[in-house]
Amino acid sequence: MPKISKKGAQMPESPIRKLVPFSEIAKKKGNKVYHLNIGQPDIKTPEVAINAVKNFDVEVLEYSHSAGFESYRNKLSAFYKKTGLPIETEDIIITTGGSEALMFAMGSTMDQGDEIIIPEPFYANYNGFSTSSGVNVVPVISSIDSGFALPPIADFEKLITPKTKAILICNPGNPTGYLYSKEEIMQLAEIVKKHDLFLIADEVYREFTYDGDVHYSVMNIPGLEENAIMIDSVSKRYSMCGARIGCIVSKNKELMATAMKFAQARLSPPTFAQVASEAALDTPQSYFDEVISEYRERRDTLITELNKIEGVKVATPKGAFYCIAELPIDNADQFAQWLLESYDFNGETVMVAPAAGFYSTPGVGLNQVRIAYVLKKEDLITAVQILKEAITVYNAK
Amino acid sequence: MPKISKKGAQMPESPIRKLVPFSEIAKKKGNKVYHLNIGQPDIKTPEVAINAVKNFDVEVLEYSHSAGFESYRNKLSAFYKKTGLPIETEDIIITTGGSEALMFAMGSTMDQGDEIIIPEPFYANYNGFSTSSGVNVVPVISSIDSGFALPPIADFEKLITPKTKAILICNPGNPTGYLYSKEEIMQLAEIVKKHDLFLIADEVYREFTYDGDVHYSVMNIPGLEENAIMIDSVSKRYSMCGARIGCIVSKNKELMATAMKFAQARLSPPTFAQVASEAALDTPQSYFDEVISEYRERRDTLITELNKIEGVKVATPKGAFYCIAELPIDNADQFAQWLLESYDFNGETVMVAPAAGFYSTPGVGLNQVRIAYVLKKEDLITAVQILKEAITVYNAK
Repeated sequence: MPKISKKGAQMPESPIRKLVPFSEIAKKKGNKVYHLNIGQPDIKTPEVAINAVKNFDVEVLEYSHSAGFESYRNKLSAFYKKTGLPIETEDIIITTGGSEALMFAMGSTMDQGDEIIIPEPFYANYNGFSTSSGVNVVPVISSIDSGFALPPIADFEKLITPKTKAILICNPGNPTGYLYSKEEIMQLAEIVKKHDLFLIADEVYREFTYDGDVHYSVMNIPGLEENAIMIDSVSKRYSMCGARIGCIVSKNKELMATAMKFAQARLSPPTFAQVASEAALDTPQSYFDEVISEYRERRDTLITELNKIEGVKVATPKGAFYCIAELPIDNADQFAQWLLESYDFNGETVMVAPAAGFYSTPGVGLNQVRIAYVLKKEDLITAVQILKEAITVYNAK
Repeated sequence: MPKISKKGAQMPESPIRKLVPFSEIAKKKGNKVYHLNIGQPDIKTPEVAINAVKNFDVEVLEYSHSAGFESYRNKLSAFYKKTGLPIETEDIIITTGGSEALMFAMGSTMDQGDEIIIPEPFYANYNGFSTSSGVNVVPVISSIDSGFALPPIADFEKLITPKTKAILICNPGNPTGYLYSKEEIMQLAEIVKKHDLFLIADEVYREFTYDGDVHYSVMNIPGLEENAIMIDSVSKRYSMCGARIGCIVSKNKELMATAMKFAQARLSPPTFAQVASEAALDTPQSYFDEVISEYRERRDTLITELNKIEGVKVATPKGAFYCIAELPIDNADQFAQWLLESYDFNGETVMVAPAAGFYSTPGVGLNQVRIAYVLKKEDLITAVQILKEAITVYNAK
């Protein structure tokens, strides 16, 4: 019998998806499950995007350019410029989601056995992309006590070896909700320039900042042009996760020419979704104002409610729509499974994402969970009440 | 300045795309270019597929299941069963084009430095996927004199090492148009079972067979269940290359569980395109009858016309919509460039794909080109007449 690859065996299972069989048990028992575990927003996709696809008259659904429609890249460049980012059309390759942009970035900058430094906790699929690219993740632990701020730059410095090729950040952060300050980004810029590394910034939550904090993009740091790679996506910006459209952005010509070869091998990004994404750029500012205001209220509701639970520690997120909460339990993996398999409060329960899967260091974050605030406020209140009751019952077992 | 990866530097440029700057020169000079170089059919996409997207009412464009819509996989399984392939829903993972299916197949079966045996000439992007996966391509040369039939199985046997993990075929073949016989498929089945290898079959041109020849799928060989991996796509079947929907199919449970981890890391295939692809399964048989009859006539026209050129050798394709032609010139790369840059016949010229890029062995196929018969018959006739004149002029230089 033929054998699967070592790489395939090492590919991590998503920390969220592995709970799915247990959520199915909960549903089979007739229990309602509040999904605090997923990053799928309930926000409506802008009509202008959906309508563009409905009105797309096409006889032959052809391949697009491997870098994506030129019209879309032009309009995207204008969109970035309006937000203060000096990004030209030729700095952009349209990808199949931010996922593919990350794969192109890793493939273009790293070989088998190379190392990428990532502050943890981090988006769990970075592990998958790294394994798939043969790259080793070198984590730098950030702490809930500092709200997941950038770890001291000396911690990065210590980890840099000749195999280190890049530092990867997610800003604002999934799963932490932390928004790096300009000073933090500048510190990262300095260290990558000093050591000739790439700084890959996953900025797909750029629009989601609260309390008037400003997002600093790696594309806006003078002198960082050759080192900076930005990953972007329409998934969260326009609540169109199913489109699967993202992009890789850089001023480094050699990097972009290399990424382009990966892009050509897979022919083109999806056409219908590009039509939707191009049209989405016409989404009025009022849409974002409403969405951001809705998320800020959800965040405030969630944090207020979580703080009512004794023994819960949570850092108030400054951006994105996640937070990491430390719970007064031993093992969040077992707890999350128990919530679905064995618990209900009047026929209702909650699904949370155990945070251990967002760490690369073994044994860290075992009592933490990631909570996404993508539900209505009243549902968030109910869900946290259920969580509170559940913790009491669980610890009394 | 940070350095790009060795892998990135080694990524091959598409043999077709690298001619694009020269085709732009031709167009700038006002010359009409007949594109014999690309696999983008001019056939209309079935209306049932386009209309499904127009009528797709969605408020939130959500992620789909990582394996694709269950409804689509169910219907696809029924479609395969109708054509005699015993493929169940759980044997299918929907991918972003056949390209992603190939990447999942390679990632799930091969590690850095492993080897994959491929009869050449082969689809040029197999080189890109292999480089990107860190896999070494080991070519077996097939010959224009035998019409690109399967090379003697002893030629494969000689190349098998402990690092060999799979044999990859494209059936019917791009760029050869060769359709493997049942006997050839059985020979491959025997050798992969003997050596515990995977047999990966890219069958995206399955429907495109002429002269009553029957396509034998690797999914239809009893006893090959653990070894067989089928790659499929809607791109050519329904002339919807821009959808970017394909699938990886196998009965090997461990392989599919592994591919699923790669699928989860990239979240989901594109939603609009899945809606179109699911609806496309309702395309009436009359559509295919017309399309196949059109392609058969185009093939016959092309081969008849090519055979009128002295010194041209061409094997009549049995399937797909390509052929490899040997031309009475020294170097097809230079010739193809000259056709665009320096030649016209009454303001018209042709673009062909030099075949060297479809070979992995250096120095082979230098006087061959790949010709796609995706143009109308009258255009094919004109294009080959231009090619004939051009060869005379080129050789008289």
